[in-house]
Amino acid sequence: MPSRFSREVRTVSVDHTAISTQIQLVARPEGWPTPDDFRTVTVEYGPLEPGQVRVVNEFVSVDPYMRGRMNDVKSYVPPFALGETMTGGAIGRVVESTADTVPVGSVVSHQFGWRDVVQEDARGFQVVPEIPGVPLSVRLGILGMTGLTAYVGLTDIAPVKDGDTVFVSGAAGAVGSAAGQFARLLGAARVVGSAGSADKVARLTDEYGFDAAFNYRDAPVREQLPTVAPDGVDVYFDNVGGDHLTAALDVLNRHGRVALCGAIAGYNSTERTPGPDNMSNLITRSLTLRGFTLGDHLHRAADFQQWVTPLFAAGKIAYDETVVDGLENAVDAFLSMMRGGNTGKMVVRVSQS
Amino acid sequence: MPSRFSREVRTVSVDHTAISTQIQLVARPEGWPTPDDFRTVTVEYGPLEPGQVRVVNEFVSVDPYMRGRMNDVKSYVPPFALGETMTGGAIGRVVESTADTVPVGSVVSHQFGWRDVVQEDARGFQVVPEIPGVPLSVRLGILGMTGLTAYVGLTDIAPVKDGDTVFVSGAAGAVGSAAGQFARLLGAARVVGSAGSADKVARLTDEYGFDAAFNYRDAPVREQLPTVAPDGVDVYFDNVGGDHLTAALDVLNRHGRVALCGAIAGYNSTERTPGPDNMSNLITRSLTLRGFTLGDHLHRAADFQQWVTPLFAAGKIAYDETVVDGLENAVDAFLSMMRGGNTGKMVVRVSQS
Repeated sequence: MPSRFSREVRTVSVDHTAISTQIQLVARPEGWPTPDDFRTVTVEYGPLEPGQVRVVNEFVSVDPYMRGRMNDVKSYVPPFALGETMTGGAIGRVVESTADTVPVGSVVSHQFGWRDVVQEDARGFQVVPEIPGVPLSVRLGILGMTGLTAYVGLTDIAPVKDGDTVFVSGAAGAVGSAAGQFARLLGAARVVGSAGSADKVARLTDEYGFDAAFNYRDAPVREQLPTVAPDGVDVYFDNVGGDHLTAALDVLNRHGRVALCGAIAGYNSTERTPGPDNMSNLITRSLTLRGFTLGDHLHRAADFQQWVTPLFAAGKIAYDETVVDGLENAVDAFLSMMRGGNTGKMVVRVSQS
Repeated sequence: MPSRFSREVRTVSVDHTAISTQIQLVARPEGWPTPDDFRTVTVEYGPLEPGQVRVVNEFVSVDPYMRGRMNDVKSYVPPFALGETMTGGAIGRVVESTADTVPVGSVVSHQFGWRDVVQEDARGFQVVPEIPGVPLSVRLGILGMTGLTAYVGLTDIAPVKDGDTVFVSGAAGAVGSAAGQFARLLGAARVVGSAGSADKVARLTDEYGFDAAFNYRDAPVREQLPTVAPDGVDVYFDNVGGDHLTAALDVLNRHGRVALCGAIAGYNSTERTPGPDNMSNLITRSLTLRGFTLGDHLHRAADFQQWVTPLFAAGKIAYDETVVDGLENAVDAFLSMMRGGNTGKMVVRVSQS
């Protein structure tokens, strides 16, 4: 898609500066993060170096995986650095450029995170096409990393086969609502999900096409899941972990597959919680559990765009966003998302084009 | 190999009968099985039908997986039927035959289990070559299902790559001692294991070529494993489950793989035990846990024979057996094996050729 994007090329050398407001992590949270773990700073960018672009962000993304990166644990995704600006997905428009490849006016997605203006080497940005009538934030959600995460989980990690029953937990969230719909488009015969409120449960069946859904706050998942999946589950897309994973292991069919994408149930826990008491099912039913993080699968982005673009254009994919206005509210938006205050993708609107 | 086996073909029609002593399961054990859960019966076989063979067993196999099949749980490997003869691996010699394909004198392996004489359709038996100087029981162990289990686990389920560190639990057992040696032959740079006595631990390093090993009764596995795998583990071949699996999840490297072959720690437990408290490592380290039972992988038997036969002939594979004499001692042999009383493959000698 980027290669088909065309716009009048206008490269501008500039000599003036810009002020950027940015949010930084200053303390490692114990349990739930608090506003005191962050600070707001302003940074002055000088004139552009050759090959740089200056971008005014329109939306920045808040995602569950960010909680893990706030901890200083040995991991292969390095933790957020203290005293540095929170990185993460964002999308904006190029306002100044000394790079031929990324002209002024381009829409670009990037990983420079929680700031209103960013200025960096052009190679750190990816030009993406605008879609008429669709807000740029869709590139952070269903057509961006969120959608790619769902796609990779259901193709490479826990492949959906024709006729499968697929269970998605946290299914009203950004990744979950994509996963449920993608599962169907990839051949699933039955798609069921869980969410944390009656409204969300209704949305799963009414808007996202789930065959059945339940509110995990109503009764133990272990009791509710078998009633919506009486013939068992072939693929489980796990955003929650904990009681959801245990319940899924109860009902997974022989050769069942689990894509472990998130474990939001435990992200803010300060204690280790016991794991599933039914791990022996992995052997007796020949199950596969596979954890993944998207960084290993970015090479699948082009395949995903090729697959999703015509489906999206044909109106076959529903999506929701919860938009919080103002970079100064990014921390609140993040915390709200961690508590389930979002439906679909949670984004922070930093500016309006 | 079977196709290269040659022996004078001598098909005999017979009209006399044979007495077979057989051991049957009569009650489903709660916790540890007891002798009262079994009975011994004698069966009289009539003259052979066309296409049948009569086999005098030399060895029958007792294996950990049999404990699971004694329970009446919904599973895709059906439970042992009450009041019927225990099935399982066995090897013997054809004494009468009305089938051209399986002549008298052939050595055959089969799954008709705990009996001294068996008479069935010839298609239920597989002719295997004799190896001069090697007891037939090797076909129940390192060159049979036991070896195939280790091979499948380290190739299809949790593939070993050049330079890997591999951890095998229950490594002095039949499958474990094969897995440790096969891991090295498949390219592992470091192989470590656990066993339940000082003698077994010594055997791992002295006989089976493990680089390091520990006695899991000496101290918590979670404390001991990191000391023998200071650079982490890439592949874990799990025969034990429980504390061993939890400890492995602590030290598995990014993209680590686990073949879940057995969970002997829990086989005789009457209560559900909590699972690993570190399941979130599956996501942060992109781990894969895969359970398997051999029935799904029998198509790999020919590949395995092709791989293992020259290695075995060249003396590159050590193996041990614990032989218990007398079919009447099969239940005791099984229980002893479940308690770790064996080194290497446990077999029951039913007759001597």
